Amino acid sequence: MSAASHDLPLALTLGDPCGIGPEIVVAQWAASPAPWAVVVGDVDVVERARAVLAAASGPAAGLVVRSWTPGDPLPAAGSGVVPVWSPAGAPSGLASLPWGQVSAQAGAAAACWVREGARLVMAGQARALVTAPLHKEALSAAGEPFPGHTELLQALATPPGQPLVPVRMMLANPELRTVLVSIHVSLRQALEAVTHDNVAETIRITHDSLCRMGIVQPRIGVAGLNPHAGEGGLFGTEDRDIIAPAVAEAIALGWAVSGPWAPDTVFMRARHAPGHPGEFDAVVAMYHDQGLIPVKYLGVSDGVNVTLGLPFVRTSPDHGTAFDLAGTGRADPSSLAHAMAMARQLTQPPCAGR
Amino acid sequence: MSAASHDLPLALTLGDPCGIGPEIVVAQWAASPAPWAVVVGDVDVVERARAVLAAASGPAAGLVVRSWTPGDPLPAAGSGVVPVWSPAGAPSGLASLPWGQVSAQAGAAAACWVREGARLVMAGQARALVTAPLHKEALSAAGEPFPGHTELLQALATPPGQPLVPVRMMLANPELRTVLVSIHVSLRQALEAVTHDNVAETIRITHDSLCRMGIVQPRIGVAGLNPHAGEGGLFGTEDRDIIAPAVAEAIALGWAVSGPWAPDTVFMRARHAPGHPGEFDAVVAMYHDQGLIPVKYLGVSDGVNVTLGLPFVRTSPDHGTAFDLAGTGRADPSSLAHAMAMARQLTQPPCAGR
Repeated sequence: MSAASHDLPLALTLGDPCGIGPEIVVAQWAASPAPWAVVVGDVDVVERARAVLAAASGPAAGLVVRSWTPGDPLPAAGSGVVPVWSPAGAPSGLASLPWGQVSAQAGAAAACWVREGARLVMAGQARALVTAPLHKEALSAAGEPFPGHTELLQALATPPGQPLVPVRMMLANPELRTVLVSIHVSLRQALEAVTHDNVAETIRITHDSLCRMGIVQPRIGVAGLNPHAGEGGLFGTEDRDIIAPAVAEAIALGWAVSGPWAPDTVFMRARHAPGHPGEFDAVVAMYHDQGLIPVKYLGVSDGVNVTLGLPFVRTSPDHGTAFDLAGTGRADPSSLAHAMAMARQLTQPPCAGR
Repeated sequence: MSAASHDLPLALTLGDPCGIGPEIVVAQWAASPAPWAVVVGDVDVVERARAVLAAASGPAAGLVVRSWTPGDPLPAAGSGVVPVWSPAGAPSGLASLPWGQVSAQAGAAAACWVREGARLVMAGQARALVTAPLHKEALSAAGEPFPGHTELLQALATPPGQPLVPVRMMLANPELRTVLVSIHVSLRQALEAVTHDNVAETIRITHDSLCRMGIVQPRIGVAGLNPHAGEGGLFGTEDRDIIAPAVAEAIALGWAVSGPWAPDTVFMRARHAPGHPGEFDAVVAMYHDQGLIPVKYLGVSDGVNVTLGLPFVRTSPDHGTAFDLAGTGRADPSSLAHAMAMARQLTQPPCAGR
């Protein structure tokens, strides 16, 4: 790696070209003189989104979409140039696909861009990966075996013949960070996933990632599984028999981990708000909705999804392709802006070289 | 019943005499010239709490604690008189028990006051029951077979030889109301409690109770059980096979019920806040923490617990006996004030006579 990683641009993938991804990506250049990122996608698709935004509002009219190749210098701050890398392997003619419709071509392109964006980061030519939303059905129509970004990147980051690298999803907003033991499985399966190893691994990944964010001795609150964290075994034994030992092991390592806490108040206690300093830097949640209900309660526009455990930083906005809004210029780009800011924060100098 | 129910006082039970109950009860008279309630408890215990509050802050110093008997007129508004009914059957000498300690005597007294308060309401001599917190261990030490208010009241309201009347817990604050299919059981048992009958009964009790609150055609959002409400069966089948049919039956009755909705956003959508009119008047939650995490996320001082399904209205603050604070005069009485306001709202004229 020739440059320090924090001097490099973010690699920002367009997502499904028929969704709101291209518009919210272009909106970053309309909003900031120096997003310090390169788009991984297709020049024509970006130009189409620029035209939509320019028609819907002012600032995008002054932008210029220009082809970029790894190794090229970045456009100067304030130049209004949107640098777009179009890696080989994606279908052409994408800019004539109709907005808001599932398309195998679009799914194939979106997957290609994610792979090439990740390779750019892993090759030390970009700082972190930020991904605009994919459409699950389009991916499937393209014959992709992965339901989404996380699984695709997990496979990409795993050396051949090795077990998949363990990853965890973190959802963060300015008030709360929560890391999930399991995600897209039924609640019954989520209960089975609350094992010693899964909980301990989630705590470890959370601790390591918060340290990389520059938080010294991160305070991690671990939620219980059952009401009142089981009330001493009265409402379930997992809190006492599975979660508590994993917490104890983390404490024995000198980490500032505590729990299992009553799930109905641990998120309130962790919440950072004016006049309400949170007790924890992150909460480890035992299942999808336990963690996502509180993170989303005040709204989703500030929410950022971070994949922890990969050998590089990857963030994304906390929303989908919004096919009903695609092509209207009305999509809210703020969650993507937060995702880019989070990716920069996660690759600050304190963790360069890690 | 000689008076319209909304002219009657609230019956306000003291809760465990060694907890913060007596203090937060007296604080209602210090804060309002006419709480329009009678205390069900013990004159000496109330006087001890008044003295604690008077020493800690100003307003309680001017209050006078006076014995009251059902049928007596209420003290005049602004008189500063706290009317206390001491029903027969409670132990004496309670005012000399130490603060903040589990006591069988205290548990027996607290249970007696709850029973007599409920009987006062059922006899048409009080408008609704508002209960300060009990201590579970004290109840148990007193040989009470019920773990808390809800079960005790459920048994009291059930005619001899009949199955227990179905009740549900609603937690409400100014932003959100949520009604729970199950409460104090393990998450595994909560999954088993998600049956057609339990979900349908919860919807019915919620609909009926919101109508009694004066809400015409209440909008009830029903949460799913699994992530994304199962995503069409991909992450669990209960949403599709159990919850959806119960929702469909409610819709067939002409009720404004919808769902099952993705659990991680239904509470955000239901939230009533400035600039954010909620989509639902209440959310039916499938288990304890699904409903309580969002209700408690912004803090518990405004939260009110309402027992739905009883033949009378019963509300309580959303906190416990706080033994560590008892006797200091520092307990926050606001949740009890909200519980009293909610009890009045639930017994407004539109539902008198129901």
